[in-house]
Amino acid sequence: MRERIEKANQQALERMFAAEPVLVDVRPAGEAMAGLEDRMVLHAGPPIAWERMCGPLRGAIAGAAVFEGWADDLEAAADLAASGAIAFHPNHHFDAVGPMTGITTRSMPVMVVENRTFGNRAYCTLNEGLGKVMRFGGNDTEVLDRLRWLADALGPALAKALAVAGGLPLKGIVARGLSMGDEMHQRNVACTSLFLREISPALARAAGDPKSLASVLEFIADNDQFFLNIAMALGKAITDPVRGIEGSTIVTAMSRNGTDFGIRVSGTGDDWFTAPVEMPNGLYFPGYTEEDANPDMGDSTIVETVGLGGFAMAAAPAVAGFVGAGSAADAANYTHTMYEITAGRNPDWTLPSLDFAGAPTGIDIRKVLETGIAPTINTGIAHREPGVGQVGAGIVKAPMACFVRALEAFAAAMGVT
Amino acid sequence: MRERIEKANQQALERMFAAEPVLVDVRPAGEAMAGLEDRMVLHAGPPIAWERMCGPLRGAIAGAAVFEGWADDLEAAADLAASGAIAFHPNHHFDAVGPMTGITTRSMPVMVVENRTFGNRAYCTLNEGLGKVMRFGGNDTEVLDRLRWLADALGPALAKALAVAGGLPLKGIVARGLSMGDEMHQRNVACTSLFLREISPALARAAGDPKSLASVLEFIADNDQFFLNIAMALGKAITDPVRGIEGSTIVTAMSRNGTDFGIRVSGTGDDWFTAPVEMPNGLYFPGYTEEDANPDMGDSTIVETVGLGGFAMAAAPAVAGFVGAGSAADAANYTHTMYEITAGRNPDWTLPSLDFAGAPTGIDIRKVLETGIAPTINTGIAHREPGVGQVGAGIVKAPMACFVRALEAFAAAMGVT
Repeated sequence: MRERIEKANQQALERMFAAEPVLVDVRPAGEAMAGLEDRMVLHAGPPIAWERMCGPLRGAIAGAAVFEGWADDLEAAADLAASGAIAFHPNHHFDAVGPMTGITTRSMPVMVVENRTFGNRAYCTLNEGLGKVMRFGGNDTEVLDRLRWLADALGPALAKALAVAGGLPLKGIVARGLSMGDEMHQRNVACTSLFLREISPALARAAGDPKSLASVLEFIADNDQFFLNIAMALGKAITDPVRGIEGSTIVTAMSRNGTDFGIRVSGTGDDWFTAPVEMPNGLYFPGYTEEDANPDMGDSTIVETVGLGGFAMAAAPAVAGFVGAGSAADAANYTHTMYEITAGRNPDWTLPSLDFAGAPTGIDIRKVLETGIAPTINTGIAHREPGVGQVGAGIVKAPMACFVRALEAFAAAMGVT
Repeated sequence: MRERIEKANQQALERMFAAEPVLVDVRPAGEAMAGLEDRMVLHAGPPIAWERMCGPLRGAIAGAAVFEGWADDLEAAADLAASGAIAFHPNHHFDAVGPMTGITTRSMPVMVVENRTFGNRAYCTLNEGLGKVMRFGGNDTEVLDRLRWLADALGPALAKALAVAGGLPLKGIVARGLSMGDEMHQRNVACTSLFLREISPALARAAGDPKSLASVLEFIADNDQFFLNIAMALGKAITDPVRGIEGSTIVTAMSRNGTDFGIRVSGTGDDWFTAPVEMPNGLYFPGYTEEDANPDMGDSTIVETVGLGGFAMAAAPAVAGFVGAGSAADAANYTHTMYEITAGRNPDWTLPSLDFAGAPTGIDIRKVLETGIAPTINTGIAHREPGVGQVGAGIVKAPMACFVRALEAFAAAMGVT
């Protein structure tokens, strides 16, 4: 049995390391993603009904309903959502991921990342920038106007540039980012800069007029976290081919909807194992405290699932301060600890401060339970009320109960119980 | 006496830390730099006559003479140079610096960095990219055609963009670069990316047509070392106001012409203290060995003079491998050692892997001689023959004899001997 599991986990790791994620397109979600219908909202985390949703998730859904023209204002939109006239599904059920509230609807542009080794595609919306944004529960005119600009200007410009460039391979950008202080969750300064550097010539070649090109370059240049959503689509593209390997105890998704934390495990297919989300420990922006904070939220934990984010904290001493995790030595410790619950080290994604050891990759639910060490996640923190936005950043743990449930189901699937 | 020196050195440090270097323009050297006449070639390092110049320096001068139209071919150019018809001067005598051979002539575009605290300006040519280039002694048609494109396309495009942007402050870019694995001498990946990210919207706004804009973006994007020349002009802009502080033992310039290494010290004004250059210890590109290497060369040591390059190696574990300096721990050790010969720590330029300690800044010639520790320099290595180009990268020491001579002169200036 043990040997069978080790072999299955080895296969899972090999698939993760063999992935060749390439950003190939940006298209309206309704065109790119099969089955994404009108009056359908995709959200972060495992499945959840309106009644159990947290404030920012409800706020973002109301904003999205106005954005799509399903309601005239936020109040009418909330009534509509509560009435059952809008269908809710996890992004993960549509090969997609979304940060924080993770809202995806038909008219929003999504980035398309193709895993060229396995042929699968993954999707994620464009990063909206910082401050009051839909992913943190924002939903006013400023938020919706920006979403329109993303759909009308930025999305098409990137699509044309990617066509000119023939797609943009992402694995090397992440590798360089790790040697430049990014962990790809709360710090994407390097990867955003490298991305802009690589795409800007193609953006210029594809551009109609220099002025709208300047706006596009400016939007990306002004947002250190622009690459986060790309990293998330990359994470999803890498983990999807790992789903459903019989006998594998490797985690293929970790995800939160602000109420429940859910994980999926390769050997148990597409079942979710959930538990209540925890509160992040972190640092708050001026004027906010932990009393304002919403519990943990977002599909962005897909980056930890592939060995980045909190797992690669050793690469990013600067992020340790930002999320309140301490010094450079503390940052390295987080990574050292994650080696204890992972199946391997990524040969292509290495950490300079650990003398180029590979990032800890492939969370093994057996090791989580044996060691009692929960995966470390670097996260943004949203205000608990709809419409406010981001109030801080911190560290949060994946709840142990998810892993207990997953192992029980895994044992049952293996015929042990 | 000791107190007087400490006070003078404190003033030197304060001036370095108070500097606000801003990239304000790119113009032909003959327009920007007062006194740069026709048939005049500026070179790296302290003054040197044609007879004592090394191969790559002679090769670059011959190329520059053809580029300027003073001779029809390289042979005629070398004859012209040997005949005394071309005047040679150090860049440093014209408020300028240049990498490796450091050739600057009238028609070459130079970047203009203004130190807004003190009002002085410093100049450096544009980085030509990697491979066969004039700074490493290259001088064939490919090299000269590229120089023409820099003068006709890249220089004017950057000048217009800088006018649109109102100049580009550099201190913050360097600070971010240090947190992203650059030491700004042999590694400028982060700063080049950050620079392109900050300037690209203005490049687009100022651009005539998207196609030539694309070429400009591509040229910068394809060259990880593009920022090196900017860092050098920044170094010169920072150190020039430190010149001539009575009683200060702080080094204001380190520089090599491939034959002599020269330093200048604040308290002894503009005198050069020279000694034969040393050979770098390093790693060679495939097909080359240390037998192909020219001795140490270039004004780029200005970055070590302001606490970057070999002094900031702790920031750049990846560069340690590139220059053959060992592991991440070794990289940190280089920086630790440089604290022993410097007067202070830069409060704005900090090193994440040393828990954000400031970069060791202000080389004190007394400390160099007391400890016997010579400044560590990260350097490119040129082929010893004209026309070949870069063959490797490594680490080299500033010769102790320069510091001995400087201290003797300093003592004399202070009336001690």
